[in-house]
Amino acid sequence: INEDAVAHAQQRLDSLTKPPGSLGILEDIIKQLAGITGQAIPKIGKKTVIIMAADHGVVEEGVSAFPQEVTPQMVMNFLNGGAAINVLARHAGADIACCDIGIATDISHPNLIVKKIKYGTDNMAKGPAMSRNEAIAAIEGGISVATAQISNGSTLLATGEMGIGNTTASSAILAAFSNLPLRQLIGRGTGISPCGLSAKEIAIQKAIDINKPDPADPIDVLHKVGGLEIAGLTGTILAAAAHKVPVVIDGFISTAAALIAGKLEPKAVQYMIASHVSEEPGHSIMLDMLGLHPMLHMRMRLGEGTGAALAFHIIDAVTHIQAEMATFESAGVSTAF
Amino acid sequence: INEDAVAHAQQRLDSLTKPPGSLGILEDIIKQLAGITGQAIPKIGKKTVIIMAADHGVVEEGVSAFPQEVTPQMVMNFLNGGAAINVLARHAGADIACCDIGIATDISHPNLIVKKIKYGTDNMAKGPAMSRNEAIAAIEGGISVATAQISNGSTLLATGEMGIGNTTASSAILAAFSNLPLRQLIGRGTGISPCGLSAKEIAIQKAIDINKPDPADPIDVLHKVGGLEIAGLTGTILAAAAHKVPVVIDGFISTAAALIAGKLEPKAVQYMIASHVSEEPGHSIMLDMLGLHPMLHMRMRLGEGTGAALAFHIIDAVTHIQAEMATFESAGVSTAF
Repeated sequence: INEDAVAHAQQRLDSLTKPPGSLGILEDIIKQLAGITGQAIPKIGKKTVIIMAADHGVVEEGVSAFPQEVTPQMVMNFLNGGAAINVLARHAGADIACCDIGIATDISHPNLIVKKIKYGTDNMAKGPAMSRNEAIAAIEGGISVATAQISNGSTLLATGEMGIGNTTASSAILAAFSNLPLRQLIGRGTGISPCGLSAKEIAIQKAIDINKPDPADPIDVLHKVGGLEIAGLTGTILAAAAHKVPVVIDGFISTAAALIAGKLEPKAVQYMIASHVSEEPGHSIMLDMLGLHPMLHMRMRLGEGTGAALAFHIIDAVTHIQAEMATFESAGVSTAF
Repeated sequence: INEDAVAHAQQRLDSLTKPPGSLGILEDIIKQLAGITGQAIPKIGKKTVIIMAADHGVVEEGVSAFPQEVTPQMVMNFLNGGAAINVLARHAGADIACCDIGIATDISHPNLIVKKIKYGTDNMAKGPAMSRNEAIAAIEGGISVATAQISNGSTLLATGEMGIGNTTASSAILAAFSNLPLRQLIGRGTGISPCGLSAKEIAIQKAIDINKPDPADPIDVLHKVGGLEIAGLTGTILAAAAHKVPVVIDGFISTAAALIAGKLEPKAVQYMIASHVSEEPGHSIMLDMLGLHPMLHMRMRLGEGTGAALAFHIIDAVTHIQAEMATFESAGVSTAF
């Protein structure tokens, strides 16, 4: 983080025709982008939503409202441009990079990035979701996808995901890192019934009891109760930070990946921009743990990167603010008493 | 409100490739726009931010961090394109219509709409801010400005304002309508000192005690402890509703106008879209009183319509969602169990 650029950005913000600090989080984002890019008037060029897709063995415990076949079906929808994230990314002028990091079946499309580590995780209610090496390989997969996008000119990344069952894995990760009762950490995901919610709680409890994930070892948590797409996004976030590229964090699953990334490398948090807080009760808890302030409160629970794509507009807007507003001096406006 | 269009919009939303309801407030906005426009797939054309500017006699009580001359200076800044609202409206593809409804001095600019009722309000700590007839004339001024914009093709309006001292008037309006202690309703506005904050509290208390605004009579509240720009925005909102045009409500002052509009005509609330919740403590209280859910939590405290202009992007985005997403059938995606 370039502290000089942050100071210059602050100086310019305070010269603009508005009460000091009155743009709130917009000003925080300007300073963050300045610190990351080294420019007091930061510019955002190409934006890319990286979507990691994978399946979860724990779905056999009846934890999801949708069947597992929806994972590859929705990935094909992403590749064909018909999903919510396609519409929102298009509207925000962003690209999508979609990666199979562990879908349970094989699918094929010219634009699909294939980094498959495994055909879905194993059922974490019965043992580790994956081996430690598989988790590391999935992180490396995410690093390679993000690095390729950055080499290809992306200056702002966002995280997105698809994986039936992945709110269960994300809740389990949060449970492993927090001392809160499970009931406060779990939610209805894509819309499971009250009965399914209780199956979800039981499955997570079993996964924690059997695997005993060690909160002092983030990779231990990730491989035992995480997911391949979560590991892929952990890599995506770490790569963004390593290349000094800001990364917009989407919803609950993306934030679980951000939590792991932040535990592995606390400095990575400085590169994260929280987009929204979802309906999933654990999401705001995770954001608090990371010290991130979400901009959008939309009661969304979709994932895919949709909240992050909405936040792209706000981030674009702040760069215009810093570049285009008049100063007190240039506009002849009096300052405060 | 066209209930058939709302039902058709809901039907289409549920056919799109996402869990039902998972887009949260985005889906609420789609249904609201459908009900207003009568189209299940609503389109937004021209967008206009209507900025009402006026001065406040109560500034002589030392309630503001900035001198009164900043009102005309900032209005010139709006007209010359240098303020935050100009940058944000431009970025959102929106026009600005700026109206002098009661600035304490005369300014002149080819694009300024002049509907001046009075050279600023009188000091409400010593008597009514304006006469009942002046308040009604200011509402009519707002109606005529909004109607002209709608005749000129605007299909989505937003409210904005400028007026040194206007958080004091807005807090007084809220105090008149609520039984909460003043201290919970007032905030630092554009950044007043703790000492100024206590002057603000005393001034509002005096205004309430001397004027005894009647909460059962919204015009009584408006003329005794309100402001000319607040009255103008009340008219703007009422005109939008009368012409079946949705109107995006900005911050604390705009929401005070929305509160008056909603008291005068409860159906007007159906045409309001809340954009953001500001740092001003009374703002979330007002939004709750109106039953509105703000999308953006940006810790902003600027006004001008800036939060509303940011929300334009989100509103544009939802219209794309409804128009462009694939359905479960067209994309071959399985539905929930």
